[in-house]
Formats: sequence, structure tokens, C-alpha cells
Amino acid sequence: MAACPDPHRLAARAEAIAPFRVVEVMEQAWRLEQQGRSVIRLCVGEPDFGTPAAVVDAANRSALDGRVHYTGSLGTPALRAAISGYYADRFGVDVPRHRIVVTTGASGALLLALAAVVGAGERLLLTDPGYPCNRSFVRLYEGQAAGVPVGPETDYQLTAGLVREHWDERTRGALLATPSNPTGTLVPPAELQAIVSTVAGLGGTTLVDEIYGELVYDVPPSTVLADATDVFVVNSFSKTFGMTGWRLGWLVCPEWALDAVERLAQNMYICPPAPAQAGGVAAFTPEVWDEVADRLHTFQQRRDLLVHGLRDIGFGVPVLPQGAFYVYADCSAFGDDSSDVARRLLHEAGVAVTPGNDFGTFGAERHLRFSYTTSTAEITEALERMAALLG
Amino acid sequence: MAACPDPHRLAARAEAIAPFRVVEVMEQAWRLEQQGRSVIRLCVGEPDFGTPAAVVDAANRSALDGRVHYTGSLGTPALRAAISGYYADRFGVDVPRHRIVVTTGASGALLLALAAVVGAGERLLLTDPGYPCNRSFVRLYEGQAAGVPVGPETDYQLTAGLVREHWDERTRGALLATPSNPTGTLVPPAELQAIVSTVAGLGGTTLVDEIYGELVYDVPPSTVLADATDVFVVNSFSKTFGMTGWRLGWLVCPEWALDAVERLAQNMYICPPAPAQAGGVAAFTPEVWDEVADRLHTFQQRRDLLVHGLRDIGFGVPVLPQGAFYVYADCSAFGDDSSDVARRLLHEAGVAVTPGNDFGTFGAERHLRFSYTTSTAEITEALERMAALLG
Repeated sequence: MAACPDPHRLAARAEAIAPFRVVEVMEQAWRLEQQGRSVIRLCVGEPDFGTPAAVVDAANRSALDGRVHYTGSLGTPALRAAISGYYADRFGVDVPRHRIVVTTGASGALLLALAAVVGAGERLLLTDPGYPCNRSFVRLYEGQAAGVPVGPETDYQLTAGLVREHWDERTRGALLATPSNPTGTLVPPAELQAIVSTVAGLGGTTLVDEIYGELVYDVPPSTVLADATDVFVVNSFSKTFGMTGWRLGWLVCPEWALDAVERLAQNMYICPPAPAQAGGVAAFTPEVWDEVADRLHTFQQRRDLLVHGLRDIGFGVPVLPQGAFYVYADCSAFGDDSSDVARRLLHEAGVAVTPGNDFGTFGAERHLRFSYTTSTAEITEALERMAALLG
Repeated sequence: MAACPDPHRLAARAEAIAPFRVVEVMEQAWRLEQQGRSVIRLCVGEPDFGTPAAVVDAANRSALDGRVHYTGSLGTPALRAAISGYYADRFGVDVPRHRIVVTTGASGALLLALAAVVGAGERLLLTDPGYPCNRSFVRLYEGQAAGVPVGPETDYQLTAGLVREHWDERTRGALLATPSNPTGTLVPPAELQAIVSTVAGLGGTTLVDEIYGELVYDVPPSTVLADATDVFVVNSFSKTFGMTGWRLGWLVCPEWALDAVERLAQNMYICPPAPAQAGGVAAFTPEVWDEVADRLHTFQQRRDLLVHGLRDIGFGVPVLPQGAFYVYADCSAFGDDSSDVARRLLHEAGVAVTPGNDFGTFGAERHLRFSYTTSTAEITEALERMAALLG
């Protein structure tokens, strides 16, 4: 006899997709503040900087001028050209505008690329730890996110060797992020090219998330597109330009997938937000790049302060994070469950951090992610509070 | 021996998802205009009206004030409260704000609800003809969109009887749109309740797309939520308020799915666009509703003009469309392939319309969709041109 059907039954994928633990941390922080407690947030995954005035003005002017209708599904011609110009001006790399797909945030770019590449039952290699949504996206499409355990010995990144080791006949590709969330580490350009070649040789596709690519501190920015055309590249206005709330990103798409990605974009999004697109065109100017350079300098100072302070307290930071605004620190000196350590830091020191289990399972219980998206004064105060509690 | 792996292989779903034919029509129209030809567009699926000034002002002010960061994944508290107020003020229906999920357009709402409900290999009933993206969304999630052939005898809508007839043990629910795209027809409230009860009795879930719900001409606006709480309702600012390019919609979610939908929204979207959300709060004011009422009056005049004119020429419009801005007309008097008729109308009369195969397969070759999203002068001219060609 068949089981009685349940009208409230969720699809299996919906049961499987994990929440953001950082949201719970934020909610607890907010409740503590309501009780009069002071909480310093080292858990926020977006810049505390706002959107450059020229970008806001361009977006607002566009809406006032009545450009509030659907745009083409791949984005406005002006913005696609501006992004192509970004690659030419910044890296001397020719990325023709027809390969640029403007998206609703990097989330939109990742969802489009993975829909095109990863079939039901197929595997995608990615790092554990890594950006948690990537695992969810693959699950959403009934694929399997194969987390490859990575540690300090590979700068928490995939290598060509790890790709070969973890590949099987159901694997369709590998997704990397450089710099990485949560570790802030890079894939060296030579290793990145070795990975692209290895994946291609195995009959797969490489996807590279470069959304933090402009936020690097000890090396010049770079792009995988300097040496590879047959890859997907995900990027975004969010982190570089302080535009998180606008939801604007892009995908550089290899030629063979353009038609499919266009059909997917038409269906899934119709188009990215029109005012944001008008704003994005105004982002690639010398004045805005000067502002980005100032922000970068501030981020670097914060990173140096935070990494130094964390090491002094006894957190393990074996690899200096060279980009993004995250430090992924080993907290095993202070307990054998990072969620507990995070809870103590929040409740006893008023410092909100993200436990490692937001980013995977490998070593998650030993790690915390610290964000330096707040002022040096707050970071200094947070370090003092943590030292007092744990020192 | 295994087949040689192909690094350029698309996922099966990406091969399966259909393009929008209307985009090809628009591109051909544009090419004809470049050659100096005049083309009247009766193919556009968005209002020619713009966004009310108060909405643009609120969005712009918000961005100027620096509210450019991520919002909560379910939307800002202010907008969720405003949408709850919409149901209270407009329909006297209590929809608590915690059940309201602000989304990136109705596309976002549909993608979230279907991810929560339709598992891999499961079926969803929907109308053929119907909004084409719905079929694609189900395919995206490796489910099966089961198109139920509908014609004038049921106002091109599902009925409780059709639901029972087409249900099987793999069916998870039914998706309706009232008014419908492409037919502009409604599901009468009593039939809608019968469908909801039938689906629930079969152990499934009903999803109702009400994005054109305020654009009805012969009856007052209504919502399924007046009589049902255990349904998903999709809505949008796009059509009602002329906000297509802002990408702002919402989902009313039943209690049992809220947690899953929140997890999905966190992962898939992070949040809807922040400036658009600030604008949306300003949409539910008496002044804006007055503007909507004026637009509604204009749409009704255009509908009456277009339906009357099409019938005079010899198109079949057996059911008066009572909402949205579409007429789904039988063109079999003028040829046995609607794509050919559309091509002739475009190239020989300079009238761009959408062929039926954008909306499904049932009767597609006999039907065209006409949009009345252009002025009465242009509609009159288009009718004259079509009469001259076909009369």
C-alpha cells in the first residue's frame, strides 16, 4: 500500500540545503545588543564601505530618466562593453563583450554557470572549506558537490594534483575561488593554469570565482582570463565597489555555452536589475578606482592588525591571507568545538564571528572565520576582549 | 569502453530549456526598423507605463542615504509589512508579514517555491498554453512540467476536474496563473477554491501566480488568499506598478515551507535588490493606486479596441480576456502555422506578435499572442495594417 501522501512534503533538495549559520550569529548579536550589550561584528561578509557617489548618481539618474523597463537578458550593451573594457584596461586581456553576461549578483552568475554545466547526478569538485552556497547550488540542480579537503599545505586551495586525485567518471568540473571565502588565500597563477589544463584534459570545465579579485594586498590583481578562454569566470560589483545590495555581477562565458546560458538567463531572471546596471557603467572610472585603492589600503591595514593580533592570542593562522577580508583561524587552542568557541566569544566577550561549519565539514570544528569589515578601532577592541577572555 | 569525455558538454537540462521566441521576434522587428521599416510591437510583455515618481524617489533617496547593503534574505521588515498591509487594505485579508518573502521579481518567487515543492522526477500540473518559464523552472530542478491542454471551454484554465484527470502518484502540485499569460483569462474564485481543495485532497500543493491580479477589467481584483492559507502565491511589482526593470516581487508562503524557503533564499539570492525594496514600500499609497486605476482604464480601452478589431478581421477570440494585457487569438483562418502567420504579419504588415509556440504545444500552431502594451493609436494602425493584409 502506498504511503498516505503529505500535502506539506518538501522536495528532498529543500530539506538538504543548509542555512547560513552566520545569520544565527547575527541574530544572537542583535538580541544581545537589545539587552544593552556591546557586540563587535567580525562576522559580516560585505564591505562596510558604501557605493561610490558616481555609481549611485548614475543609477538614480537612469531611473529618473525612465529606464525602468526590462533590459536584454544578458545585460545592457553599455555595461557589457564597460566590463569588456575593464579586462582590457586593467589586465590587457581581450574579453569580447558578447562573452560577458551581466547577472543578478555573483549568485546569479554561479546559478547560471552551474545550471549549464552540472547535470543531475554529476559531480563538481570544490574546496572544503569554501563558500557554502556553491554546495547548495549543485544540490539544487540534483548534482553532487564533492568537497575536497584542503588545508594550509595548499593554501586551502585546490591543486592540479588534488583535482586528479578526486576526479571520477561522474565529475564534470572544478570550481575555485581566488581569493577564497573563508580563507582569503589565492591560487597562484601558474597553479591555476595547471588546474585548468588538468580539468580540460579530464574532459571537464573549470569555473573560477574572482569576486574578491580586486581585493588583494601583496600581489597585483590578476585574472585567469589572461591565460585561458575556455573557462567560466564569476565576478561581481559587490565587494570591489561596495554594491552588495544592488545585486549586480557578471559571468564570462566560454563560446560553446553562450547559447545555453542565454536561454537559462531569459527563463530564470528575465534580466538583471536595470538601475543597478546603469550604476555599474559608472564604476569603471579613474575616480572610482582611486576610491577602491583607498579602501584596499584600509583593508590591508586591518588585515595586518587582525592577523597579528589573532596570532598573539594563540589562534593559528598558518597562511597569511592575501585577499578578500577574511581570516580563517584555527581556534583549537581554546576548545575542540569551534561553534562553542564562537558562542563564548559572542556571549562572554561581545565578539561575533562565524563558526567553521558554515563553510564545510573538513576541520570545521577547529576553525573560525573573522571578517575585517569593521574599523581598526573596533578590531583593536575585539582583539583586547578576546585576549582578556582567552589569554 | 567509455565515450571520450567532452569538455564542452552541456548539462542535459541546459540543452532542454527553450529560448523565448518573442526575443527573436523583437530582434527581427529591430532589424526591419534599421532598414527603415515601421514596426508596431504587439509582442511586448511589460507595461509601456513607467514607474510612479514616488516609487523612483523613494528608491533613489534610499541609495543616496547609503542603504546599499544586503538586506535580510526575506526582504526588509518595512516592505514585508507594507505587503501585509496591501492584503489587509485591499482585500480585508490577514496575511501575516512573516509569511511574506520579498523576491527578485516574480521569477525569484517562482524559482523559490518550485525548489521547495517539486523534487527530481516529480510532476507539476500547469496549463498548456501558459507562461513558458514555468516549464523551464521545473526542468531546471529535474522535475517534469505536465502541461494540461486547455481551451476556451475552460477559459484556458485548469479546473478541479482537469486536475483529478491528470494527477498521478508522481504529481506534487498544480500551478495556476490568474489572469493568465498568454490568454488574459481568470479562474473564477469558486473554481479556484475547488482546485485548491482537490489538490490538497490528492496530497499536493497549489501555487497561484497573481502577478496580473490588479490588472482585471470586468470584475474586482481578488486573491486566492481570501479563502486559502495553505497555498503559495506569487506576485510582483512589475506589472501593477510599471516596475519590470527593478526586479521586485514576492512570495506568500505557507507556514510549513517557510524555513525551507528562507534557506533557499539565503543561498540562491542572498537578498532582493535593496533600492528596489525601498521603492516598493512607497508603491502602496492612495496616490499610486490612483495612478494604477488610470492605467487600468487605459488598458481596458485598449483591450476592447483590440479584441473588437481582431474579431472583425477574422481572428478567433472565443473568450473575452478579462485581465493582464494579452489577447490569445486563433489565427487558423489565415494559415495552418501560427509562426508563418506571425512572420507574414511582421514582414508584410509591420506588426510584431508572438507565435503560440512560445507558450506550449497544444493548439500553438493555431494561435498568436497580441499584447496591448502600446497606445490606442498604434493598436488602431496595427489593426488597419492587419486588415489590409488578411482581410
